[in-house]
Amino acid sequence: MAELMENQVFRAFTTYAAIVVLKMVLMGPLTAYFRITRGSFANEEDVARKSEEEKKKLLKAHPDVERVRRCHQNDLENVVPFVLVGLLYALTGPELSSALLHFRIFTGCRLFHTVAYITVLPQPSRGLSYILGMLVICSMGYSVLNTVFLL
Amino acid sequence: MAELMENQVFRAFTTYAAIVVLKMVLMGPLTAYFRITRGSFANEEDVARKSEEEKKKLLKAHPDVERVRRCHQNDLENVVPFVLVGLLYALTGPELSSALLHFRIFTGCRLFHTVAYITVLPQPSRGLSYILGMLVICSMGYSVLNTVFLL
Amino acid sequence: MAELMENQVFRAFTTYAAIVVLKMVLMGPLTAYFRITRGSFANEEDVARKSEEEKKKLLKAHPDVERVRRCHQNDLENVVPFVLVGLLYALTGPELSSALLHFRIFTGCRLFHTVAYITVLPQPSRGLSYILGMLVICSMGYSVLNTVFLL
Repeated sequence: MAELMENQVFRAFTTYAAIVVLKMVLMGPLTAYFRITRGSFANEEDVARKSEEEKKKLLKAHPDVERVRRCHQNDLENVVPFVLVGLLYALTGPELSSALLHFRIFTGCRLFHTVAYITVLPQPSRGLSYILGMLVICSMGYSVLNTVFLL
Repeated sequence: MAELMENQVFRAFTTYAAIVVLKMVLMGPLTAYFRITRGSFANEEDVARKSEEEKKKLLKAHPDVERVRRCHQNDLENVVPFVLVGLLYALTGPELSSALLHFRIFTGCRLFHTVAYITVLPQPSRGLSYILGMLVICSMGYSVLNTVFLL
Repeated sequence: MAELMENQVFRAFTTYAAIVVLKMVLMGPLTAYFRITRGSFANEEDVARKSEEEKKKLLKAHPDVERVRRCHQNDLENVVPFVLVGLLYALTGPELSSALLHFRIFTGCRLFHTVAYITVLPQPSRGLSYILGMLVICSMGYSVLNTVFLL
């Protein structure tokens, strides 16, 4: 096991995977922040102490909250596959330089994607960072299937 | 490979990861149960045999179904990162006692979170179990980055 | 590490996991395709160049887009747990024939599930492929807990 963590590619993968997953997890508190500042909640028990009138207002969707949630969802749809395919990719023993290129581009893309989504940067900034991130996953997936193929 | 499963930390991780992932997967049938008992479906083909009037009624969202779906979504946002970061954490060879503490707190939190969400326990019970679970993920992520860091 | 990829079960797992994750990731471009052809977007910046009147029309939800998104969500809820539990299962060293049976049934089910969802095949085709896929995850999870149990 210690052997695995002595491998340079696996260490690099572990570092970048931890960074992007932690970033994704922090979308939760960001959603909570927007829910509180924008006054938009999803559950009745979250606004239990308010008057009936206030409750109705607080249980409506707010565009800013929905935006953070879409960003979070997009992370789930891309960061999770990156870690899953990236793990298999790292285990197939690729070149360190090639692996680093994949991990760095993906991590950069996703950090930029979040900024572009939350601060409403004009398109195609968000679209391109999404596509580039997805291509990295596909490239690693292709490499994995090319090295290890047993149907 | 067998070596990996002889490691105590990895065996503990495997046990807790399997438990929380299976719990998450079972949110699917729970959603189906609420959809059927509450009469609230998402797809036209699911209510194909009903009359036009009934279809309209059955294709409306129901608060109980939406609640289970939000709970499922929250699991996706937390249980999946736990398993991903937890796997890397287990591979960095932490102390068994420290690892068990992380795994047990997280598993307890998520089981309680589901109960609190579905049975509508008053806040902050759900909020606290969510935050504590997230702190466990962050703590493991920090430990991983602290042990293995290669950018 | 190379040892891991010489193991037949692990190679089979890697192959099937890469296939289903890549399939899931490609739901993203499929959603984009439906968004463009059906004229239904989620973000204001995606329709920035259009007139105010057109914007309102383009920012409405379209049933076909929502269908692809539900299909993508169902993949997240099932493909990700399959890879997570499947990885642990592969590491417990099951029989190759038994492992292949699990991986093949799941992969077949999920490919069929996507076709059934997108092309609106009559029920219970979609429902059965979902249930069968879930049973495969549960069976692997049971096998994992049966082999490695350390609470």
